[in-house]
Amino acid sequence: MANKILIDLKEDEKYVWKGKGDFHTKDGFIKEADIIEGKNPLITSKGAQFLCFEAQHYDRAQAIRRGPQIIIPKDLGYICSRSGLTRNSVVLEAGGGSGGATLFFAQLVKEVTTYEIRADHCEIIEKNLKPYELTNLTLINKDLAEDVANLEKNKYDLLLLDMPEPAKVLEKDLSCLKSGAFIICYIPSITQIQTITNYCEANETKLYIDEITEVGLRHWKVSGQIARPEHRKINDHTAFLVILRKL
Amino acid sequence: MANKILIDLKEDEKYVWKGKGDFHTKDGFIKEADIIEGKNPLITSKGAQFLCFEAQHYDRAQAIRRGPQIIIPKDLGYICSRSGLTRNSVVLEAGGGSGGATLFFAQLVKEVTTYEIRADHCEIIEKNLKPYELTNLTLINKDLAEDVANLEKNKYDLLLLDMPEPAKVLEKDLSCLKSGAFIICYIPSITQIQTITNYCEANETKLYIDEITEVGLRHWKVSGQIARPEHRKINDHTAFLVILRKL
Amino acid sequence: MANKILIDLKEDEKYVWKGKGDFHTKDGFIKEADIIEGKNPLITSKGAQFLCFEAQHYDRAQAIRRGPQIIIPKDLGYICSRSGLTRNSVVLEAGGGSGGATLFFAQLVKEVTTYEIRADHCEIIEKNLKPYELTNLTLINKDLAEDVANLEKNKYDLLLLDMPEPAKVLEKDLSCLKSGAFIICYIPSITQIQTITNYCEANETKLYIDEITEVGLRHWKVSGQIARPEHRKINDHTAFLVILRKL
Amino acid sequence: MANKILIDLKEDEKYVWKGKGDFHTKDGFIKEADIIEGKNPLITSKGAQFLCFEAQHYDRAQAIRRGPQIIIPKDLGYICSRSGLTRNSVVLEAGGGSGGATLFFAQLVKEVTTYEIRADHCEIIEKNLKPYELTNLTLINKDLAEDVANLEKNKYDLLLLDMPEPAKVLEKDLSCLKSGAFIICYIPSITQIQTITNYCEANETKLYIDEITEVGLRHWKVSGQIARPEHRKINDHTAFLVILRKL
Repeated sequence: MANKILIDLKEDEKYVWKGKGDFHTKDGFIKEADIIEGKNPLITSKGAQFLCFEAQHYDRAQAIRRGPQIIIPKDLGYICSRSGLTRNSVVLEAGGGSGGATLFFAQLVKEVTTYEIRADHCEIIEKNLKPYELTNLTLINKDLAEDVANLEKNKYDLLLLDMPEPAKVLEKDLSCLKSGAFIICYIPSITQIQTITNYCEANETKLYIDEITEVGLRHWKVSGQIARPEHRKINDHTAFLVILRKL
Repeated sequence: MANKILIDLKEDEKYVWKGKGDFHTKDGFIKEADIIEGKNPLITSKGAQFLCFEAQHYDRAQAIRRGPQIIIPKDLGYICSRSGLTRNSVVLEAGGGSGGATLFFAQLVKEVTTYEIRADHCEIIEKNLKPYELTNLTLINKDLAEDVANLEKNKYDLLLLDMPEPAKVLEKDLSCLKSGAFIICYIPSITQIQTITNYCEANETKLYIDEITEVGLRHWKVSGQIARPEHRKINDHTAFLVILRKL
Repeated sequence: MANKILIDLKEDEKYVWKGKGDFHTKDGFIKEADIIEGKNPLITSKGAQFLCFEAQHYDRAQAIRRGPQIIIPKDLGYICSRSGLTRNSVVLEAGGGSGGATLFFAQLVKEVTTYEIRADHCEIIEKNLKPYELTNLTLINKDLAEDVANLEKNKYDLLLLDMPEPAKVLEKDLSCLKSGAFIICYIPSITQIQTITNYCEANETKLYIDEITEVGLRHWKVSGQIARPEHRKINDHTAFLVILRKL
Repeated sequence: MANKILIDLKEDEKYVWKGKGDFHTKDGFIKEADIIEGKNPLITSKGAQFLCFEAQHYDRAQAIRRGPQIIIPKDLGYICSRSGLTRNSVVLEAGGGSGGATLFFAQLVKEVTTYEIRADHCEIIEKNLKPYELTNLTLINKDLAEDVANLEKNKYDLLLLDMPEPAKVLEKDLSCLKSGAFIICYIPSITQIQTITNYCEANETKLYIDEITEVGLRHWKVSGQIARPEHRKINDHTAFLVILRKL
């Protein structure tokens, strides 16, 4: 059976049911047969109400939270729409982290190549992505800065750099990127951006600075007569996105 | 020849070269042969410098600006990442507008069905999307509220509602959506959200309110010793996103 | 002796020393004589370092945190600057709460009249403000809506309404306000604003809607090579400010 | 006669009537006698409707828009509330600009000393503030960095630095500030903040970094059934505020 998401209606809290067995809550248990049937609401043995629905790709991907920090949906979404990804795109990524962005791209586009310099992170990525049996992903345990000049020419539509010193890649021969390809650097601290823009400004016929931006979310509570921003739920700073075009 | 993007280096302004002919600027012209060769920088007949790169999918999609308002990348991206779209997803959309979201989805996912109640908007969509020769899009000139109950069961992963009264669809039989499918309502005014949340709260075993949010961008200027938010470039309010799950 | 603020240098945590006695920390104590002398840094009996400075008006006012919610500095400041308060202004306020705004105004302007409908809140205000021995404050335990029409004509520069139904005051005779006086409504939920704007739009020769706004803060961490928004410190939503002018 | 503010009801546009004479609009004129009487609405000779109210301190202060950039109300307000100003405070300011902040403080607090290094700016300030006949302001055409060590000891509650290199003042003897006094640096670019925090971190027993923040406004349109953020009216970036305490 596929996983299901169970929601405690009283506390508005979500749980994952792993496809098998009764589900035990602090207000009694829910029978496996009821969960499989999936009629809403589910009633626990002590009469508490739960909602359920089948886990979808989003829910499964949310589980990738172990290991190094992942890029979250607010940033992944803008990277996708701002670089015009389609199901025919070819993506090159460095700094695989836990594989969150890798999975996002691999599920969407034709082909993904991911460089990750740390062997332990590569293991985490492989473990996190194993259930997906991805056939369009190449994971390489190496520094992209060493390899980038030797990759197939004119191949990639997007280069995502989630690493401490993206300029070390930018200063290399980038002919593996298509003309007009997007290079997006994911940068936590504003000071790191200066190294990038300084390099681009000194090499203005190589890289064009298209946009430097932050993506923010603001969550709202709308219920009955209430309509106001959520308390204590404003989205935290993650990173700035430096969006370049290959000339 | 494919289109190219030409950038006036002095004014940081972008132009589209339509694949043919010399390009005339206010500082002289650039020869077709030079643009096709594509060496940076291009020099106009009066010595001005331009940059160029090949137009990519993002640049072409940006051209869809005629007719009714489109959903812009900041919102499209979050809709994509927050609903976990993959290249195997099936999307149902109502309120096709100018076809901006339709194109975004059709280029990414397996299959898109778009309802648009106005015949003139359908014509705009068809005209805007014609160059893409999309084979995975069904465009229907009808009110989705009338049809939704009769669509194939358990088929769609995402329902996007960009229309004045989404509750008219929500209150119908939504069994065409998978369990756990995402329903995202694109809502300009906060007061319209109340109609939706009121319906969901009165039908809490049918639809789960997962998140009500706004996506914002903040652009930065980082150049030399300057690092500050851009003046006069903060992104405008577009809409709130009401994110529901089908139970 | 006046109070002093002591700062644990290691944990960046502030404490108030109440003007007397040794100060006990979890890393030993600081001698009263050292605190009175006030040389930085102070060293505890176990060798930990503390900083100290004399508590100023801001620090004392921060202590008003008991009882009903107070209006915080980000909102008080804009109320002050946006209504052009000077030390000669006369302020009328309804919804005294804990006395936070009352204290702010009473310390700045010539005269403050505060209405508070609840007797228990009046007691809290009196207790909180007692140490200040304010001579320019009149505190009235009554509903302003009942009294406002009978107040001295043409007297007040600012009317601040921090109450659930400000329209109940707005619909009364407001001749106690100067022509051009500011009326600022502090409104947590956006839906409550509609009642106000509906009344003003129906009475457009009585009240002019000047601005509806929210004040936000964004805190930054700048230290060594780090320069980024603070994690987990973004300021929460408090209220919208509806700024009207008396015609 | 005092000035009045006239509002074109149809276009929601404000005008200043300078206390004398008929007022000419593009839809006819309004008679002086009608404006002096001040009954709302005023009717022009062509039947157009205007609203009017007496100009208050805020309206007059808004007129200071000539010359170097001023600090606007969103920032002035937070500077006031966050530093706990009262009508007994004593303020030291450097970088007088056009006198906007100077006027704000001089109208609120007991005494203001303003340093402005440029003679032409001093003239602008004097001209802008002349109508106010301020008796609590000392304006000095000099670099504060040269003078600060010689000012009267333990006198000032707030030091506001609106100048390109505030660290040049911070590194001097600051004994003219009370213990616990606020020092607020108004800083347009984030990179300039690093110079300040580096100095403070190297001199941690002299200056305590209390908060680094930005103040933002978000304007709303609430009218009839509409309730959404204003289009094209989001407040621009002005500056970061670095808030220090004198130890």
